[in-house]
Amino acid sequence: MSRPAALPDEGRRRAQIDQLLPQVDGGRFPVKRIVGEPLHVEAHVFADGHDQVAAVLLHRKAGAEEWTETRFTFVENDVWTASLPLDELGRYEYTAEAWADPFLTWIRDLEKWVRAGAGEEVAVELQVGARLAEEAAARARAKREKEGGGEGPAEELEGWSHRLLRWSRDPSVADDPGSLLGTEGPLDGTLQRLAARFPDRSRSTRYGRELEVVVDRQRARFSAWYEFFPRSFSPEPGAHGTLRDARRMLPYIREMGFDVVYLPPIHPIGRINRKGRNNRRTSEAGEPGSPWAIGAEEGGHTAVHTDLGTLEDFRAFREAAEDEGIEVALDLAYQCAPDHPWVEDHPQWFRHLPDGSIRYAENPPKKYEDIYPLDFETEEWPEMWRELKGVVEHWASHGVRTFRVDNPHTKALPFWEWMITELKAKHPDLIFLSEAFTRPKMMYRLAKLGFTQSYTYFAWRNTKTELTRYMEELAHGEAREFFRPNFWPNTPDILTEELQSGKRPVFISRLVLAATLSSSYGIYGPPFELMEHTPRQPGSEEYLDSEKYQIRNWDLDREDSLKAVIGRVNRIRRESPALQRNETIRFHSVGNDQLLAYSKTDPEGTPPVLVVVNLDPDHVQSGWVELDGPVLDLVGERAFHVEDRLGGGRFLWEGARNYVELDPALTPAHIFRIQSRLRTEVEFEYF
Amino acid sequence: MSRPAALPDEGRRRAQIDQLLPQVDGGRFPVKRIVGEPLHVEAHVFADGHDQVAAVLLHRKAGAEEWTETRFTFVENDVWTASLPLDELGRYEYTAEAWADPFLTWIRDLEKWVRAGAGEEVAVELQVGARLAEEAAARARAKREKEGGGEGPAEELEGWSHRLLRWSRDPSVADDPGSLLGTEGPLDGTLQRLAARFPDRSRSTRYGRELEVVVDRQRARFSAWYEFFPRSFSPEPGAHGTLRDARRMLPYIREMGFDVVYLPPIHPIGRINRKGRNNRRTSEAGEPGSPWAIGAEEGGHTAVHTDLGTLEDFRAFREAAEDEGIEVALDLAYQCAPDHPWVEDHPQWFRHLPDGSIRYAENPPKKYEDIYPLDFETEEWPEMWRELKGVVEHWASHGVRTFRVDNPHTKALPFWEWMITELKAKHPDLIFLSEAFTRPKMMYRLAKLGFTQSYTYFAWRNTKTELTRYMEELAHGEAREFFRPNFWPNTPDILTEELQSGKRPVFISRLVLAATLSSSYGIYGPPFELMEHTPRQPGSEEYLDSEKYQIRNWDLDREDSLKAVIGRVNRIRRESPALQRNETIRFHSVGNDQLLAYSKTDPEGTPPVLVVVNLDPDHVQSGWVELDGPVLDLVGERAFHVEDRLGGGRFLWEGARNYVELDPALTPAHIFRIQSRLRTEVEFEYF
Repeated sequence: MSRPAALPDEGRRRAQIDQLLPQVDGGRFPVKRIVGEPLHVEAHVFADGHDQVAAVLLHRKAGAEEWTETRFTFVENDVWTASLPLDELGRYEYTAEAWADPFLTWIRDLEKWVRAGAGEEVAVELQVGARLAEEAAARARAKREKEGGGEGPAEELEGWSHRLLRWSRDPSVADDPGSLLGTEGPLDGTLQRLAARFPDRSRSTRYGRELEVVVDRQRARFSAWYEFFPRSFSPEPGAHGTLRDARRMLPYIREMGFDVVYLPPIHPIGRINRKGRNNRRTSEAGEPGSPWAIGAEEGGHTAVHTDLGTLEDFRAFREAAEDEGIEVALDLAYQCAPDHPWVEDHPQWFRHLPDGSIRYAENPPKKYEDIYPLDFETEEWPEMWRELKGVVEHWASHGVRTFRVDNPHTKALPFWEWMITELKAKHPDLIFLSEAFTRPKMMYRLAKLGFTQSYTYFAWRNTKTELTRYMEELAHGEAREFFRPNFWPNTPDILTEELQSGKRPVFISRLVLAATLSSSYGIYGPPFELMEHTPRQPGSEEYLDSEKYQIRNWDLDREDSLKAVIGRVNRIRRESPALQRNETIRFHSVGNDQLLAYSKTDPEGTPPVLVVVNLDPDHVQSGWVELDGPVLDLVGERAFHVEDRLGGGRFLWEGARNYVELDPALTPAHIFRIQSRLRTEVEFEYF
Repeated sequence: MSRPAALPDEGRRRAQIDQLLPQVDGGRFPVKRIVGEPLHVEAHVFADGHDQVAAVLLHRKAGAEEWTETRFTFVENDVWTASLPLDELGRYEYTAEAWADPFLTWIRDLEKWVRAGAGEEVAVELQVGARLAEEAAARARAKREKEGGGEGPAEELEGWSHRLLRWSRDPSVADDPGSLLGTEGPLDGTLQRLAARFPDRSRSTRYGRELEVVVDRQRARFSAWYEFFPRSFSPEPGAHGTLRDARRMLPYIREMGFDVVYLPPIHPIGRINRKGRNNRRTSEAGEPGSPWAIGAEEGGHTAVHTDLGTLEDFRAFREAAEDEGIEVALDLAYQCAPDHPWVEDHPQWFRHLPDGSIRYAENPPKKYEDIYPLDFETEEWPEMWRELKGVVEHWASHGVRTFRVDNPHTKALPFWEWMITELKAKHPDLIFLSEAFTRPKMMYRLAKLGFTQSYTYFAWRNTKTELTRYMEELAHGEAREFFRPNFWPNTPDILTEELQSGKRPVFISRLVLAATLSSSYGIYGPPFELMEHTPRQPGSEEYLDSEKYQIRNWDLDREDSLKAVIGRVNRIRRESPALQRNETIRFHSVGNDQLLAYSKTDPEGTPPVLVVVNLDPDHVQSGWVELDGPVLDLVGERAFHVEDRLGGGRFLWEGARNYVELDPALTPAHIFRIQSRLRTEVEFEYF
C-alpha cells in the first residue's frame, strides 16, 4: 500500500482561477495606471462540469485590512472582467475569489427543463429549488444578524422557497411548465438577482497571489518636457546666469506648450579635476564645469550652486513656473565631485585603492576624474541609502515632485526599489524618470522596480520598420504594463546622426514622431528649436561646445526657430485625449516606406488622431493610407472630414483608402483630427 | 521626518534574476519534459554598472534536501543558459542564484588597462588583484576545512596573490604592461578559472521561486494509439468476444505499427437502464450495453466483465501485447451504472433528489439514464478520492501504466491534481491521456494540473489555415511547455463530416496529418482502416450501429483496407526522430491553399522530414514548396535528394523552391526524407 495521501484541507473548491490579469512576472511587480481611470481586470474562471460559476474581484488600498468586492461579469470563453476604480494615488492590491454556484446553476437548468416542456423534471427541480432558496434565506439571515437591518431578502427568499414548493405540487405547472416563464415566476430575473446576492462561498477558491497596481497622477503618462541649462541665460552674454535670470525662460517655454521644465543639477560643482569646455580633462580659471560633478565645499546634493542663487531663488523659480502651469523637475545624480562634503564626512561610501586614495568613476580604459561613484558595496550602505533618500525628501519638502534620475543602472538595483517604494508611500505624486540608456532587460527592470517613466531608444529608431517595431513593443508588448516611455529626439548627450544633417524637416519630423508616438516626450533646448547640429567631432554624438561644460548664449528670436511649430504640436497634444495615451496606437499601411502612418483613439470617444510623417527630408512622398480597426469602424464606409491640425487644411475623405502627399519643404507631417462621418439626408430633420 | 524606512536585511545583493525560463504561470505548474533529454534553462541576469555577474542553476529531484549546482553560461543580451540533465523519471525542482563577481570583473578590467598600455593603472590594479586573490584563497581554505582535502587551489591562489603583488612593484611591468598577456600571466585563463571556482557568494541573489519539471518516459511524447472494442472479435459472429479472442488482434495491430492499444472500459456493464443499439433508451435482452455504464453486481471499476474473461485473461492479454511491443491502455471513466456496487456501498457519493432517488447524469434537456455521476461535493470526498485513486493503483498493480481518462472536465479539478501527483510520485512512468473535448482554457488547465497527454480539436481542423494556426498554437505557443497533443482523426464518438464522405483520400490525408503533425496520435479501428463512414443520422457525428452499444463484426482482410498505408506511416514515424517531437515544426509556403507543407527537424541532426498533404480529395493539386529555416540551412543552395517514404520515389531537388504535385487518386501526401546535399567534384577524393 502507498503511504496515506496528503489530501488538501478542502477538496471541494471546484472553481479554478486560471489567470488574473494584468500582472507582471507572476505578481512580483505592480502594474501601473493613472488616477481616475479604472483598472480593467480579467480573470479566467471555470469549474468542472456545466455548473455556473461566480467570481468577485477583491481589492483594497495597500495597507488596508478589509477587501472590497466587485462582482466579475462573464464575457465569453471563460473570460470574466471587473473594473477596479482607482480614485486615489498610491498602491492598490487585488486578487480574486470564485466559486461554483448551485443556486444559479439550478435557475439556468430549470429554464432549460421548462423550455423543453419536461413537466416531470420541472416538478422535481422545483423541489430542489425550494431547498436552495431556504439555504440562501439562512445565509441572508446570518448576514443580517452580523450586520444588522430589518426584514428583507431573507424573508423574500423564504417566500420563494414556499412558492417553489407550491408550484412543484401544482399539476397545472407540470402540465404546462411554460407558465413558469411569466413575470413573478422563478425565471423573470428577480430570483436570480436574489440568489446572486447570497451565494454559498464556503468552498470558494482564492487566486493564489495578491497583485498590485501603482496609481500615478496623469502627468506620469502625459507630459511634455523641456530641458535647459539655467546658467546660459544671463542677460550679460558669457556671464553665469542665475535662477532669477532663468525665470525669463518660463513664458517662452509656456508658449511652446511644455508642462515640465527639467533642470540639470543645480548644486555646487566640484573644483577638483573640473572638466573644461568640450570635456577637456582640465579647466581654465572661470570655466564652470559639468553640473553632474556634484558637490564642493559650499555643499552637495541638497545645496544650490551659489552662482545660480539660493534655495529661496529656487523656490521663486518653481513658483513662477507653477504660475505658468509648468512643473519643475530636478536631476538626481547620485555621484560626487572629489570635493563633495560626503567624501570627507563618509569616506567609507567610496571605494578605496590600496594607496588609500578613492577610485574615480571609470569604464576601462576611460576614466572620469571629476567624479567619484558611490560604493553600493559599502558596509555603511544603510546610512548611505537613508542619506540618498533624504536628498529626495529635502527637495520634496521644497515642493519638487518630479525627478530625472541620472544613470540609475549604475547604482544598486535593490536601492531603487526600496527608495522609490518608501518615498511614494509618503508622496504618491512623485515621478521618477529613469535615464538609463543601456541594455533592454535592464531598462525594463528599472521600470519594474518602480521608475515612473523611462528614457528609450527612440533617438536611434529612424526607419519606418524600426519605429513601428519599437512602438509596437512598447505599446502592445508585455512592457506596456510597467514601462512608460518618454521620447527624446535629443539630450545634452545625444545629438543623433540624423539631426547632425541640420535639415529642418528632420527636426520637425523627429519632433512630431516623439510627441505623437509617445504620450510623454521631451526636448533639450534651445539647441533643439534652434537646430543646433554640429558634433564635437565627426562620428561623435556629443554637441560641439556643449552646455555641459560651458555657458552658451542663445538667440531665441532667430527667425528659423522651431518654437512656433513646437507650440502647435503641444497644443494639438493638449486638445487631443487620443494623444495622451499609447496603448491604442495602430499603424496603417500607406504603401510607401518613407511614409509612416498611425492613429490613436481615446476610450471616451473624442476624435481619433491620424498622424502621417514623411521620413524623407528631401523628397515629396505620397501614398494611400489604409484605415482599419477602430478608426475605420468610426467613419464607416461613408464620407468624413479630416482636419490637419499641424499644417492646416480640411479634407473630405471617404472609406478606408485615402490619398496623402507630404512635401518636406512645406511640412513633413500631417496630424489629422478625424471627424466622425458627415450627416446625410437621412439624418436631416425633415427627411 | 518620515518613519524609519524598512531596509532589506542585506542591500548589497546587486545581481538581479529578471526571468527564469521555462515556467508556467509564474511557477504554479510544472513544465514537462522527456527522460534522457536535458532541460534547457534560460536566466536573465545582470547587475548594476559594468560588473561581471555569475550565476548557477540549482536543481534537485523533488524531495531531495541538497541542491546540485550547474554554472550558467552567458549567451548575449543578459541571457544566460544552463542545462539540467533529466536522467530519471519524476519531478525535479530548479531555481537560480546569481552574484556580482569582483574578482572576475577585476580580471576583465585588468586586461582592458593592459591592452590600453596604461602602466600606472595596471600597477594599482595588480595590488587590488593581490588582495582579491588572497580573499579567494581564504575561501578555498575554508572550503577545504569543511570538505577535507590536501593542498591545492588555496595555495595556488596564494601564489597568485604574491605574484600579482610582485608585478605591481615591477617597473618593467609598468613600462610594458603587455608583458602580462603571455602564458603564465594573470590573463591566460588560469587565474580566471580559479577565480570562478571560489566566488564570494555571501551577497548572492536567489530567484524568488522554485520551479518544477515533470519528467516522463519517451512514450508520453511519442506514441501511436489504436483503440478497439475487444467484444467485437469473437470468432463466432455476433457472439461476445473475450480478451482471449482479442489477443488475435495483436499481430494485426503490431503490423500496422501501433505501440499503444487502448481498450474501452473492460468492467461489468450495468443492467439497469442499459442502452440499446444506436443509443436507444432501452435495450433488448442480450444487448451488451455501453462499456462506459460501469458496474453491476459482479463488480465495478476494478473488475473484469465476465463476458470478456478474468483478471488472469487480462494479464495474459497484456503480456501478449507487450510481447508484440505494445502497451495496453485502460479507460478511466469515473461514473457508475445504477447497479454499480458503490451505489449501495457509498450512497453519499451520489447526488440525491428530494424523493431520495439518485440524480442521473444530465445536461438539460438531455438525460443519461444509464449513468450516475459521482458527486464531488459529497461530505465523504476524502474517502471517495482515495477509492478513485485506488482504482488506478489496482490496475497499476496489474501492470497497467497508461490510462485514457474519460471526460476529466466533468470531475472536480483539485481531485486530478492531487491524484495524478500522488500516483506519479510512486509510479513516475504513469501516463494519463485527458479526453476532454471542451473549452480551450479548461483543456489547457487539465494539462497543467498533471495530465500527460491530451485530446485536441484536431478532428475539427480541416483547412490549411485551421491546421496551421492550431499547430502553431500547440507547438510554439505557451501551451508547448505543458500540453502534449494526441491527434485523433476519429473516435467512437467522433465520425467527422469530412470522414462521412467516405473518400479514401480523405482518410489517408487525415491519417498522415494526425501522424506527422503530432508526435502522438491514434485511431479508432477497425472503423478507421475500413473507412466506416455512415452516421447514425444526417448531421450527427456518431457512427451508425456504433460499437459503443452493440457487438460488430469486422472483415479485417478487406481489399480496400488502409492497414498497409497505416503500417507505412507508422514505420516512417519510428524511423524518423524528427517526427517524434513537435516543437521543431515549421510550415512552408506552397502557393496553393489545398496543399499543406511542413517540415520537422531533430536536434540530433537526423534527416529532416518534409510532409506535403493535398487537402483536396478530388483534384490533382500542385505548387512550389518554399523551404526556409533549418531545413534550408541544411541543404543550402545546392542539389539534394528527397525520398518519398510514403508514396515511393526519389527526387533531385535544388535550392529553396521545388515543385510538388499530388494526385489524390494515387496518394494524397508526400512524406519526404530530406537527404543532406549531394557531393560535388570538390569532395571527390582525386579532385
